Amino acid sequence: MTIHIEELTFDTIIGILDFERVTPQTVIVNVKIDYQYINKIFINYADLISLIEQQMLEKKYELLETALEELIQNITSTYSQINSLNLKITKPNIINNAKVSLSSSWVK
Amino acid sequence: MTIHIEELTFDTIIGILDFERVTPQTVIVNVKIDYQYINKIFINYADLISLIEQQMLEKKYELLETALEELIQNITSTYSQINSLNLKITKPNIINNAKVSLSSSWVK
Amino acid sequence: MTIHIEELTFDTIIGILDFERVTPQTVIVNVKIDYQYINKIFINYADLISLIEQQMLEKKYELLETALEELIQNITSTYSQINSLNLKITKPNIINNAKVSLSSSWVK
Amino acid sequence: MTIHIEELTFDTIIGILDFERVTPQTVIVNVKIDYQYINKIFINYADLISLIEQQMLEKKYELLETALEELIQNITSTYSQINSLNLKITKPNIINNAKVSLSSSWVK
Repeated sequence: MTIHIEELTFDTIIGILDFERVTPQTVIVNVKIDYQYINKIFINYADLISLIEQQMLEKKYELLETALEELIQNITSTYSQINSLNLKITKPNIINNAKVSLSSSWVK
Repeated sequence: MTIHIEELTFDTIIGILDFERVTPQTVIVNVKIDYQYINKIFINYADLISLIEQQMLEKKYELLETALEELIQNITSTYSQINSLNLKITKPNIINNAKVSLSSSWVK
Repeated sequence: MTIHIEELTFDTIIGILDFERVTPQTVIVNVKIDYQYINKIFINYADLISLIEQQMLEKKYELLETALEELIQNITSTYSQINSLNLKITKPNIINNAKVSLSSSWVK
Repeated sequence: MTIHIEELTFDTIIGILDFERVTPQTVIVNVKIDYQYINKIFINYADLISLIEQQMLEKKYELLETALEELIQNITSTYSQINSLNLKITKPNIINNAKVSLSSSWVK
């Protein structure tokens, strides 16, 4: 089975520029997780979304690179049934004529 | 040949939460089916759409996981010429700041 | 190099239903072509679009399957530098709550 | 890590037709770059976007093919940590009922 969280949108402190440290900006998170579905043990999408939002709001990451690494670490250790995962974080408003994103994949 | 049913949208009872058992919610189904096209035997898209809608309306699934498994079983046994299939069900409104989906693939 | 024609939209007679034989309907064509770019010999996108539109308008195909097969035959014989191709034809309005498409790939 | 620049939109002189040599037209650039992220050395998205925009504005390319080749050459020599890259340039307005694009991939 593959669970998709698409266009998860919220405001958070993220980035290394001066104004990014004081003013929250919108981020969009997309996650795609392949996992083994056995014995009716499913991944609760509300819990997964909460994990991602809470971690980013608390950590106020400077680099998207660090955010990806730590989120992947947390998600894969929380859900042992995950086989592979792709996580993408988008800053839709930081550049006025483009959307910029960073993504990373993980395979068991 | 590959047949695509994209953004098939309708309301149905689905989910395990109390309000999901009584109030229909919108689901969006995307299907991509690779099949062998020989002797002009094509897959009728209207029939395929009807099969999916009717089964979900009747079964009022609790888990998206079960819906995917039973729909794939029904589609692949109805159309023997299918080589592979990807089926995705989205709940666009269950989380207010994200779209959540579950998908599954099948290969002959 | 890969040339992409995306969301090529026009009205044509297509389909097997009675009303489809008399009333033109909107189709959307997407094409992705990998080709060898050497000696500055490029594929002219206007010519490629014209080939697709003219052939569909003239042939008034009954089956999307036949349209795909004959368009792929014509495109790949017109442009010998093509290595592979994916062609998708969508009927966006034939089903009121879904988009239906058929696609086919070709590899040299 | 993968950096994505999506829907980078600006006006530039590009193309071989007479009016394209005198009137700037909108182009949309999409870039996806896989790179090795070690020792906190990240690719600055603002610098990458500036490199692409400045080069296209200065060179006023006649062929999308040449633009892709020279941009890929410049990007991959500027960022030695790149493992692979896909670059796509779209002319959204040159054809009235379609979007036309050219893309190219590079692997170290």
